[in-house]
Amino acid sequence: MTPTYADVLAAGERMDGLIRRTPIFSSATLNREFGREVHFKCENFQKVGAFKARGALNAVLNLSINTAAVVTHSSGNHGAALAWAASEADLKSFVICPTNASRFKRDAILRYGAQIVDCGPTLNHRETALQAFLQENQATFVHPYDDQDIVAGQGTATVELLNEVPDIAEIWVPVGGGGLAAGTVVGANGRCKVVGCEPELARDAHDSLAAGKRMPALPPESIADGLLTSLGEINFDILRQQQTEIHLVSEEEIRAATTLIWRVLKIVIEPSSAVPVAAALKNKVSSTSPIAIILSGGNVVPILNV
Amino acid sequence: MTPTYADVLAAGERMDGLIRRTPIFSSATLNREFGREVHFKCENFQKVGAFKARGALNAVLNLSINTAAVVTHSSGNHGAALAWAASEADLKSFVICPTNASRFKRDAILRYGAQIVDCGPTLNHRETALQAFLQENQATFVHPYDDQDIVAGQGTATVELLNEVPDIAEIWVPVGGGGLAAGTVVGANGRCKVVGCEPELARDAHDSLAAGKRMPALPPESIADGLLTSLGEINFDILRQQQTEIHLVSEEEIRAATTLIWRVLKIVIEPSSAVPVAAALKNKVSSTSPIAIILSGGNVVPILNV
Repeated sequence: MTPTYADVLAAGERMDGLIRRTPIFSSATLNREFGREVHFKCENFQKVGAFKARGALNAVLNLSINTAAVVTHSSGNHGAALAWAASEADLKSFVICPTNASRFKRDAILRYGAQIVDCGPTLNHRETALQAFLQENQATFVHPYDDQDIVAGQGTATVELLNEVPDIAEIWVPVGGGGLAAGTVVGANGRCKVVGCEPELARDAHDSLAAGKRMPALPPESIADGLLTSLGEINFDILRQQQTEIHLVSEEEIRAATTLIWRVLKIVIEPSSAVPVAAALKNKVSSTSPIAIILSGGNVVPILNV
Repeated sequence: MTPTYADVLAAGERMDGLIRRTPIFSSATLNREFGREVHFKCENFQKVGAFKARGALNAVLNLSINTAAVVTHSSGNHGAALAWAASEADLKSFVICPTNASRFKRDAILRYGAQIVDCGPTLNHRETALQAFLQENQATFVHPYDDQDIVAGQGTATVELLNEVPDIAEIWVPVGGGGLAAGTVVGANGRCKVVGCEPELARDAHDSLAAGKRMPALPPESIADGLLTSLGEINFDILRQQQTEIHLVSEEEIRAATTLIWRVLKIVIEPSSAVPVAAALKNKVSSTSPIAIILSGGNVVPILNV
């Protein structure tokens, strides 16, 4: 089912006091660099270091059935988010996780209290491992992005953003499974445009919207490790209906945008977060309208090279 | 002259709207790690990326003589701060800067509009180059740390901190020239204890306070490149009078504390800022009293290693 704006507002109330109302940063240096006023919604400061805490907590708090455990598949942030959300709700949690996932993200999943079930690197591996797990265990599956409650939860970031900076003309977001992008469309409720951004190496949302049907994910090769999954069905429908543009950026542009944010804003963001930064830098327009970028997460460990 | 608490309050009013009221961060994970409640005053988000903007701006706004240019010697943050402050006051600026200073910091000095005058790596080189410059040019010298207005300006961070979190028992700060440490003592105005922290490789403040007289700086070898200068005279007097403890940490402890803050708080701090973090981690006490750490700056470029 497609979530509504009312679902997003209900999610915000349900999670009040449990998730962080993250700060919105800006910088005169970056405004010059982008050629327009840019506001950064800092979800890297969210619980578990990523916006994923919003969707996962909303899904767990809104479970329609009585359950003692939840399970998901995730290469990282959603897994940590579900582990955290489950512990807030006194539930057990399990995460089907590719063995090649970032070590940092695997550690976080464990630290927040989930058990990891290993699987191979592709979406197919994850889904097979999930089915096997569900046949042998009692647990409720929480989809990482293609779920009404997940999408409504992610949309709460946009409600906070537009409450604080009402005159935003466009919100630029990264697109992986599309939960954040779809949540942003629903949370914006027609008040501004939503622009999706993908790595060229993981352009399935771009190609799906161009083709008018969902295309499979590409091999997992981008450094934007949060954006390697394929676009969810609910999310595809929401983005297609809004005729959402998807901008593509190269790996080199993602790297440069990541360190630009580190250097100027003095905050740690992961490469996935830098995808809309790179895209907005590349598509400069002369405009007086401010835009916003959702910095989706900060789960990366930079190296100190002195 | 020793600055007073009234000087700090006057500095805060003088600079209102020009410097940033920086946020104060905390984290449940870090509270567990430190064994007590810790508040981080984020001066890495200050103008020019360091607390130095406070002292430099206060000094420039409070110049007692009419001048068209200011000059200082600095390996980095004070130089950028004076360049920025001078441009706010429509003055020219010159910075005597060691050729081995961090490239990032030299670039910042230039970006904020100062002219760089090269010198060798030691304090002696800087002072000789400064004298030569002053003989040939018309400019007012603004000392990087041993100056009443500089110290009063740095103290404004502590006034903000104690206004926002009144029950702080101790404020931990890095000690280089001692401007921040002395300003913190004056700004705290007896409301809490101030603890100084130095790299073992740059322990002149520790040794000076132990000996009861100012000792020369050690060779510039610590990665905490903001803390390599020798303790100023005004600052020595203020710290000695308060019997300020100085804790020492190793280079390895500084590295670990730097990346700990990056990883958990998702903010970029430079190694000098991590010195009090490392010291507070090493000197865990079981206490119900919250402490604060001033994160002095964020001018470093971490490496993206994916």
